[in-house]
Amino acid sequence: MSARPPARRGRRGGDADTRAEILAVALEHFAAKGYDATSLRGIAREAGVDPALVHHYFEGKSALFAEVIGMPADPAALVSQVLAGPQEHVGEALARTFLSVWDPPEGRMRFQGVIRAAVGFEGASRMVQEFVVREIFGRVAGELAVRTARRADDAALGAGLAAAQVVGVGLLRYVLEVPALVDVEVDELVARLGPVLQQHLVGG
Amino acid sequence: MSARPPARRGRRGGDADTRAEILAVALEHFAAKGYDATSLRGIAREAGVDPALVHHYFEGKSALFAEVIGMPADPAALVSQVLAGPQEHVGEALARTFLSVWDPPEGRMRFQGVIRAAVGFEGASRMVQEFVVREIFGRVAGELAVRTARRADDAALGAGLAAAQVVGVGLLRYVLEVPALVDVEVDELVARLGPVLQQHLVGG
Repeated sequence: MSARPPARRGRRGGDADTRAEILAVALEHFAAKGYDATSLRGIAREAGVDPALVHHYFEGKSALFAEVIGMPADPAALVSQVLAGPQEHVGEALARTFLSVWDPPEGRMRFQGVIRAAVGFEGASRMVQEFVVREIFGRVAGELAVRTARRADDAALGAGLAAAQVVGVGLLRYVLEVPALVDVEVDELVARLGPVLQQHLVGG
Repeated sequence: MSARPPARRGRRGGDADTRAEILAVALEHFAAKGYDATSLRGIAREAGVDPALVHHYFEGKSALFAEVIGMPADPAALVSQVLAGPQEHVGEALARTFLSVWDPPEGRMRFQGVIRAAVGFEGASRMVQEFVVREIFGRVAGELAVRTARRADDAALGAGLAAAQVVGVGLLRYVLEVPALVDVEVDELVARLGPVLQQHLVGG
């Protein structure tokens, strides 16, 4: 084992925790300041590493952002999880998956960072769109379109509307903090969102 | 009639158009830069008026913002419009009202400004929450709760979920520009959103 300096954020080399520390600091910065005002230099400074080391681990700010907003699990794994259950409960499964990802304290901060970046910066909008709408909702809707012989454009619209509902709930619960949506328990929220997402994804 | 300088944005006095001109410039600035980066001084400069005149018409940046994001119609009038039709079509009426307000080019810019400000600045979040969630959705849900004898907290949650759906659609259609939601016609969108909003507002 290599010797490590005692101070958590003292300047240090490329040990195994450094990458995780850079990611943790980046998450804080993106969430607090948004995409544009966050700099790799500032992240490096707070993480106590040389800026070159940040570039060593991540291709650039956009790559770092993509990793920061990356779902805790692989999108494909989340999609499989949503689709694994019975088809008549896919809406409920999607609501529960979404809330299990974003509702914990770190998830909330992550969501805030994603939304702030997405509305403030075109490149980030594209990333959010690609990640959340295409990789998650698009895949779920695409798979269901095949199962239910629905037209592709109809399935895409359904996926967009389901994403709008879920992202809207995140916006009101985690960012705007609308009391009625902050106070509600996860189980109640899943019960209310399930049928609506079901309708969007599978059709009435 | 008072004589007016020929240049539209030349420095001028307190004529009848000045207030409208300040509002138009403020809308552009809030939409392009968000709440924090917009200054009354910059708005005054572009509108070609003295900063003191901006303060004469508006109490401060937050008051100007509130007026900029103000619905084109009085919220109470929009609510009456939504509730005037048959109760079984209230979801559809709400979807159509929302789209008629935000879908025109100026409405889109307004929506972008509201969302950028709302996620970037706590005071603006509160204003958006108060305006959109409480004044519009809250009133509709409150009125329907009385008509259908629904519990107030249940109605508030329904209003929040309906607001989340509609604001989410605005976010994906006007800000993130998700293709499936950009391409869809208003009538189709109303047809898809109507039953979902109905379910949130009136219950299944």
